[in-house]
Amino acid sequence: MIRMNEMTWMEFKAKIDEGAITILPIGACEQHGPHLPLCVDTVLANGFAERLAQRVGGMVAPAINYGYKSKPLSGGGPLFPGTVDLNGDTLVRLTYDVLEELIKDGVKKIMVLSCHFENEAFVCEAVDLIAQKYGEQAKILIANWWDPMPAEIIDKVFDEVPFPGWAFEHAAVTETSLMMAFAPELVHEERMVDTQGATPCPYHIYPVPKDAVPPTGVLAPARSSSAARGQLIIDSVLDELVKICDKEF
Amino acid sequence: MIRMNEMTWMEFKAKIDEGAITILPIGACEQHGPHLPLCVDTVLANGFAERLAQRVGGMVAPAINYGYKSKPLSGGGPLFPGTVDLNGDTLVRLTYDVLEELIKDGVKKIMVLSCHFENEAFVCEAVDLIAQKYGEQAKILIANWWDPMPAEIIDKVFDEVPFPGWAFEHAAVTETSLMMAFAPELVHEERMVDTQGATPCPYHIYPVPKDAVPPTGVLAPARSSSAARGQLIIDSVLDELVKICDKEF
Amino acid sequence: MIRMNEMTWMEFKAKIDEGAITILPIGACEQHGPHLPLCVDTVLANGFAERLAQRVGGMVAPAINYGYKSKPLSGGGPLFPGTVDLNGDTLVRLTYDVLEELIKDGVKKIMVLSCHFENEAFVCEAVDLIAQKYGEQAKILIANWWDPMPAEIIDKVFDEVPFPGWAFEHAAVTETSLMMAFAPELVHEERMVDTQGATPCPYHIYPVPKDAVPPTGVLAPARSSSAARGQLIIDSVLDELVKICDKEF
Amino acid sequence: MIRMNEMTWMEFKAKIDEGAITILPIGACEQHGPHLPLCVDTVLANGFAERLAQRVGGMVAPAINYGYKSKPLSGGGPLFPGTVDLNGDTLVRLTYDVLEELIKDGVKKIMVLSCHFENEAFVCEAVDLIAQKYGEQAKILIANWWDPMPAEIIDKVFDEVPFPGWAFEHAAVTETSLMMAFAPELVHEERMVDTQGATPCPYHIYPVPKDAVPPTGVLAPARSSSAARGQLIIDSVLDELVKICDKEF
Amino acid sequence: MIRMNEMTWMEFKAKIDEGAITILPIGACEQHGPHLPLCVDTVLANGFAERLAQRVGGMVAPAINYGYKSKPLSGGGPLFPGTVDLNGDTLVRLTYDVLEELIKDGVKKIMVLSCHFENEAFVCEAVDLIAQKYGEQAKILIANWWDPMPAEIIDKVFDEVPFPGWAFEHAAVTETSLMMAFAPELVHEERMVDTQGATPCPYHIYPVPKDAVPPTGVLAPARSSSAARGQLIIDSVLDELVKICDKEF
Amino acid sequence: MIRMNEMTWMEFKAKIDEGAITILPIGACEQHGPHLPLCVDTVLANGFAERLAQRVGGMVAPAINYGYKSKPLSGGGPLFPGTVDLNGDTLVRLTYDVLEELIKDGVKKIMVLSCHFENEAFVCEAVDLIAQKYGEQAKILIANWWDPMPAEIIDKVFDEVPFPGWAFEHAAVTETSLMMAFAPELVHEERMVDTQGATPCPYHIYPVPKDAVPPTGVLAPARSSSAARGQLIIDSVLDELVKICDKEF
Repeated sequence: MIRMNEMTWMEFKAKIDEGAITILPIGACEQHGPHLPLCVDTVLANGFAERLAQRVGGMVAPAINYGYKSKPLSGGGPLFPGTVDLNGDTLVRLTYDVLEELIKDGVKKIMVLSCHFENEAFVCEAVDLIAQKYGEQAKILIANWWDPMPAEIIDKVFDEVPFPGWAFEHAAVTETSLMMAFAPELVHEERMVDTQGATPCPYHIYPVPKDAVPPTGVLAPARSSSAARGQLIIDSVLDELVKICDKEF
Repeated sequence: MIRMNEMTWMEFKAKIDEGAITILPIGACEQHGPHLPLCVDTVLANGFAERLAQRVGGMVAPAINYGYKSKPLSGGGPLFPGTVDLNGDTLVRLTYDVLEELIKDGVKKIMVLSCHFENEAFVCEAVDLIAQKYGEQAKILIANWWDPMPAEIIDKVFDEVPFPGWAFEHAAVTETSLMMAFAPELVHEERMVDTQGATPCPYHIYPVPKDAVPPTGVLAPARSSSAARGQLIIDSVLDELVKICDKEF
Repeated sequence: MIRMNEMTWMEFKAKIDEGAITILPIGACEQHGPHLPLCVDTVLANGFAERLAQRVGGMVAPAINYGYKSKPLSGGGPLFPGTVDLNGDTLVRLTYDVLEELIKDGVKKIMVLSCHFENEAFVCEAVDLIAQKYGEQAKILIANWWDPMPAEIIDKVFDEVPFPGWAFEHAAVTETSLMMAFAPELVHEERMVDTQGATPCPYHIYPVPKDAVPPTGVLAPARSSSAARGQLIIDSVLDELVKICDKEF
Repeated sequence: MIRMNEMTWMEFKAKIDEGAITILPIGACEQHGPHLPLCVDTVLANGFAERLAQRVGGMVAPAINYGYKSKPLSGGGPLFPGTVDLNGDTLVRLTYDVLEELIKDGVKKIMVLSCHFENEAFVCEAVDLIAQKYGEQAKILIANWWDPMPAEIIDKVFDEVPFPGWAFEHAAVTETSLMMAFAPELVHEERMVDTQGATPCPYHIYPVPKDAVPPTGVLAPARSSSAARGQLIIDSVLDELVKICDKEF
Repeated sequence: MIRMNEMTWMEFKAKIDEGAITILPIGACEQHGPHLPLCVDTVLANGFAERLAQRVGGMVAPAINYGYKSKPLSGGGPLFPGTVDLNGDTLVRLTYDVLEELIKDGVKKIMVLSCHFENEAFVCEAVDLIAQKYGEQAKILIANWWDPMPAEIIDKVFDEVPFPGWAFEHAAVTETSLMMAFAPELVHEERMVDTQGATPCPYHIYPVPKDAVPPTGVLAPARSSSAARGQLIIDSVLDELVKICDKEF
Repeated sequence: MIRMNEMTWMEFKAKIDEGAITILPIGACEQHGPHLPLCVDTVLANGFAERLAQRVGGMVAPAINYGYKSKPLSGGGPLFPGTVDLNGDTLVRLTYDVLEELIKDGVKKIMVLSCHFENEAFVCEAVDLIAQKYGEQAKILIANWWDPMPAEIIDKVFDEVPFPGWAFEHAAVTETSLMMAFAPELVHEERMVDTQGATPCPYHIYPVPKDAVPPTGVLAPARSSSAARGQLIIDSVLDELVKICDKEF
């Protein structure tokens, strides 16, 4: 039993008493092109969290289903319908409250697993504020699936197309492959577009120009995505996350 | 296709253009005694939302999985591990942001379906602030499953045990029956306790006394719960919710 | 001497040193139909607070004269001129600050007496936040006049007209009777209307529809109100409040 | 009829339709030495507001009974029991909400009458924020009783003792005389102390030193106070406030 | 070495270990008539801070370059381009955060030197909140250059023109003279206007009327300003500030 | 004349009327090892801003001297004395207020030039909120000096040592070289350490471990830094920033 959601309070208490790691998945509701659903980041967050919990004897808290504002060149931005974003302050307070309650319940080892790039600064802010209040009472890690991925896996995944950089890996090879492995029924392979991706821009423009992003919302082509590549990422990232847990907790 | 989560942004846009009702389920992560999991309120919110969406051609936004603070005499309160609550201000901002983004995307008909009693005042506050800003641009209803339930259904459901009032119907006959109908695999019937329920108290006490609630967290006995009673509630409440949608939208 | 307002700081200090209960009345500025003034909830809060202070040797802090937003089906709502409401966050902060200052001054026993239905959730939030900060340093009760009222008194008060439920008891028999007992000079008996009351609605609608409430602002007829009935309520509720103080402090 | 509190909503609406000036009194709950009660600033705010309303055909909104933090050298500061202060942000939000609701009800002419020195900056902030939102929809004045007082009246009031400057006029000649005129039953003349007053300090010290203020809380002697001097102030200040209303509204 | 900005972290640490006083200058970006630049308050804050640091062996933290809202009759107000103001809450949080970080670094003696009149209440609020959290861990003074100025210096500075009171001393004799002494290259003496100054008004008006202030933004004539008078102020005020530091730290 | 600080309000107004670009520099007060001062990020922000203003006929607003929280692996983090950080919400409000005031003054073209890595998400949040309120009324760019730097310049600057990645370029070759070019008097070349740099970590840990960063605060060696390399960066980045201004404004 790894989903906190499905535990009774007594089962949850027993897990805490064992010193189990609690993983908090944070996703987003954000456009992912014509071939992927709005929930990609949440599916990935839950998917990694549950497998990691199985590996380390931990448990998974209910997901935060909404994330911080999608930016044009890392997620397509606010101009796409279906991208439902939180203000920065809201995400900080939401993450803060959930972590505070877990700590008050006795949880001492927490991994926040955010799978939406733009969440990072605000999740860190929330955790910093928690750490100022609770000090050594709990140790909190903030991780994702892309930073721990070994360089050689990137090479293997991008054996057919060039790696466009993490920011543009939105609705592209890695996310599509991961969805094919985690939730193939939600991938519309036949709708994958192979148009020109987004053009990098070394500064931000506000209000966001309507042509900042390709009209499909795909920042780089998803061509060459496959469930096998997705599984390769999952296996290698999970190994890294398990190592991190072993080292830090 | 009724889950917004599973739609691409283009599918979501098509639904909005049809004028579809968007239902936002709000649950909680809260103790529900030894026989029910922490996610009861979220399961019920999603369960009613999805069936209602099917009936009215609407769609269901990703659930808000955490709710406002559980109170001792309507949910057991903060003293139980596993009850992970948001501060009032956090729930207001979270609900506000999600609704604002939906309205900016063009959604004009929204039903917020909260299945955690204590959420109500803060959800109303969020919606009031949204309505002050967006006026007639969107019509928003706030509903639950207990207020629209016809009196005769209450009589039918409580044909073996007396109705203890809604506040005490926590982890008791209605919630247990609903869970048996919606997610029987999450109900531990064999752990149902039939001890003395909670004693009403016509005022609030802070700090919450440790003995305010029976140690199991059950406020009234769940005895006589059944999937059939759950289905009876579901059917009658859905009929009412459909009538509400027909009348208001 | 029971009004903190009229004490010098030395007299106040002496009362604290005695361990006196401090009662904080919270009212509202809200329409109450054509026959009652805007200040009903404040008059009732002060009236009960002062009599209770006399009975228990306590004192009454200066009243909070504005309350949370009036809802259509419990107070007539925002559409009536003269209803001057606070945002939820404002009421939380206001109540929090007053309680914090009292506790810092050494007060250990506080009863918040709110006589405006819609205040409850936000007053509880303020007190919860205070209790998180000050723990057992002070014990705080939150009460009103309707929840402790014995069932048999309701029967006696509603011997001529049926009891419409507490939400609709706005500017109706109980409030009118209480005003006749507490402040008869502010009651315009000749303007009492006996029109159709409000119709219950098991959900909230925003923006608030203009026809949600009868045009007079009276949710249920005030017919049969009398100072004697008011006094009956006062006496019985005070007895209950005294019992609560005796039990809890 | 000048107290909004005592009006029905219909009477209030009729006053607005006449274009009546609405006066919002803001006081404080603050130590005023051994001879004056905690409510001095509120009594003065209500006293001036009601007399002004009578002179200009206006009305008086329910008072804000708590004010911003008392400072040592203008009110004695936080070290005296009975001084119950609001945080700055709380007073801003409270004043903002009340003004916003009045403006939404159609009020176009508002005078905020604050009789607690330390309130000023935060009341101005609230009104500035309102003016940014509502522009010319309402004209709002912020006044007190000391700034408009003609110089020759100060000379007449201080014919026996020297004028110590406004900051030190706390629980001293002007406030004591005003209380003797407005509410003589709340003045304990026999407890007036004639000790050394406070020593000016051209900077602020935090945390507030325990000896910053004379132990009685009196910043300047109240000797020579009288109801006649109070009446002199009332009459002259009211004349000025009426002139201000005539000029500005 | 007195500017914290120019220190390495090791040099800063050494100063703290010595028990050095840290001075935080707060200025503003605000119109100062046709002859003075927008940065007057910041130049004066830095100028006094650096000289004081030299005298007491202290150090100067990086300046806060923006201040609270300019008021018409003490700074010309919001209607002049170039007046870039912070909301009250923003200034409170900004000052709070800087002070908190200094205290966490081990600083025990802090002087906040604000040279913009309107900052005072909000700086005090920030420091009060810090003092509530950190208590005796740090002693914080809030000072400016005008309150400690000896009366005889005012007489000497105003030997040719009458002293108009501190509020109107905006872009007038004292500020112009101080700028002539601190930063003569930023003073356009030839553009000094000798028109009618502002007219006092014993109340505030919102929205701010367009004619509240002379069109030049000068509240009182700067005629008779000189570097010598500026130096006289600097010397006398510094002597007072040194005395304050000696007494309090 | 390019510094807004040194302009009179009339000169500022004339620049706005010309349609001049306003550049808002945002720095930080943060440890930069034993050889660089705390103000590096502010010196660089002002340095680039002033040169850019000269090139494009723009002007430079007063700098924001404090930034968001330094993170261990991009700035050394909170454990070093002298790192004085703002909370995220504070930086958002501060940036928001300054931008709002500039826009109200008529500024239509703004470049926010932040030279502290950790500021980015919060500056974007502030600008996003402004853009939501003011829409097309002003165009706002957010830039720094590292993202627009051409790849070939990186190769030239790192001709002796390998490029460690931007996050670790803290107090290392680029910042040290830039300081040598902009403010050589603040660089202590003789104190440069050539120890082992920081070790990358693909996740965040809270509370920040004491050994997360080398004890000097240097994340990568500054060896090979030179004023010539600094000038090379300055020239190439300015060319890019000028191109950006030409394209966007």
